[in-house]
Amino acid sequence: MKTLVIISHPDIMESGSQQYLLSSIPDNKDITVHHLESLYPDFKIDVEKEQALLKEHDRIIFQFPYYWYSSPALLKKWQDDVLTDGFAYGKNGKALTEKEFGLIVTIGVKKEEYQPGGREGFSIDELTKPYQALALKTKMTFLKTLPIFQFSYLTEDQKMTLLIRYQQYLTQEKDDSLEAREKWFLQELKSTDLSKLNEGDQFILEQTIEFIEESRDTIDELKIVLDQMN
Amino acid sequence: MKTLVIISHPDIMESGSQQYLLSSIPDNKDITVHHLESLYPDFKIDVEKEQALLKEHDRIIFQFPYYWYSSPALLKKWQDDVLTDGFAYGKNGKALTEKEFGLIVTIGVKKEEYQPGGREGFSIDELTKPYQALALKTKMTFLKTLPIFQFSYLTEDQKMTLLIRYQQYLTQEKDDSLEAREKWFLQELKSTDLSKLNEGDQFILEQTIEFIEESRDTIDELKIVLDQMN
Repeated sequence: MKTLVIISHPDIMESGSQQYLLSSIPDNKDITVHHLESLYPDFKIDVEKEQALLKEHDRIIFQFPYYWYSSPALLKKWQDDVLTDGFAYGKNGKALTEKEFGLIVTIGVKKEEYQPGGREGFSIDELTKPYQALALKTKMTFLKTLPIFQFSYLTEDQKMTLLIRYQQYLTQEKDDSLEAREKWFLQELKSTDLSKLNEGDQFILEQTIEFIEESRDTIDELKIVLDQMN
Repeated sequence: MKTLVIISHPDIMESGSQQYLLSSIPDNKDITVHHLESLYPDFKIDVEKEQALLKEHDRIIFQFPYYWYSSPALLKKWQDDVLTDGFAYGKNGKALTEKEFGLIVTIGVKKEEYQPGGREGFSIDELTKPYQALALKTKMTFLKTLPIFQFSYLTEDQKMTLLIRYQQYLTQEKDDSLEAREKWFLQELKSTDLSKLNEGDQFILEQTIEFIEESRDTIDELKIVLDQMN
């Protein structure tokens, strides 16, 4: 699976959350990071190039700070210019069909305000309906949104958990089961470059992999026993 | 009441619906029409000028063609640049408080598609939630949206009805009662320049005004009778 992360942020170098997320993206040929403001500071978008890029990927992600309950303007311009009739929808417009489409949104306000009675009054799921409608129109599968509330207030532990959620969002096959997550962790652990670790850490990593595989064996055995009981 | 119509349309001269609406706007010092793409073709917005303009008006209207369930990108840029913390919201950000805020949206697809099961899947009221949230945040009163579906398919009669709805949207005090609409019609009729009409039309216009005023008298009398019966 190839993932395209389209980032729109007018001031990405100054953004703690964007820099944190970016620094965690593994050097992986299946992930393309694509920052619009760096490429098109004058708002003039190379439509053919963008359409070709979309075709090469299976999962399309919009990553942006939440400005007035939507993306920065350049991403909107990108939508209007690139997702044309005949390409993304309409007769013969099937280029995005069956791809996956997700949103990673950084938000300055706390989660509790996004509900009736809260200061923002509406939930993120309500406010992202234009994107849900886009997925419907282009026949893409809409993924659960990954909202990141008040990044700068997160503890180090919360940030680590976020990183894992983020990396899963980019690379984990769409399936939230224990087995899928387990498979993802094993894959990540096994692809770690052991030579960069000291001996102690190498040992811990190998033991972790063995532990996860053993748990899987135990779970599978328990399931067999349960099946025989029924 | 002063109304500011902020239009965002990248190709306004070629738009039949926009030209039709524009041509109907009366020469009225209380209505300011403000086309963003003419003013800021390079997406560089004069924030101070825009904020001053907002302050001078009581009703703020966004008028735009529906692109991906939202406005064209320049209006989004305008929102992000102009509606700043400290001006439109946040501590001391009270510049828009108690103003009215409405949307006039031209839409190429027919109304029936904007519902679950329809091709667009969501209603206009669902898709405009980001604007409703904006009104809430800036403490403006959100007006009923005026969606214009498939303008080019309208009959001449439907277009005339639309024009009246449009002009009411710009100038009628927020109140949908029969009395408010009546007041609006009388005002419009009375401000018509009679010298431009032929004698027959002048006569009809005067009779219409008399007729509306008489209906009002009748309604008022009936109400008094009803009140006495209770």
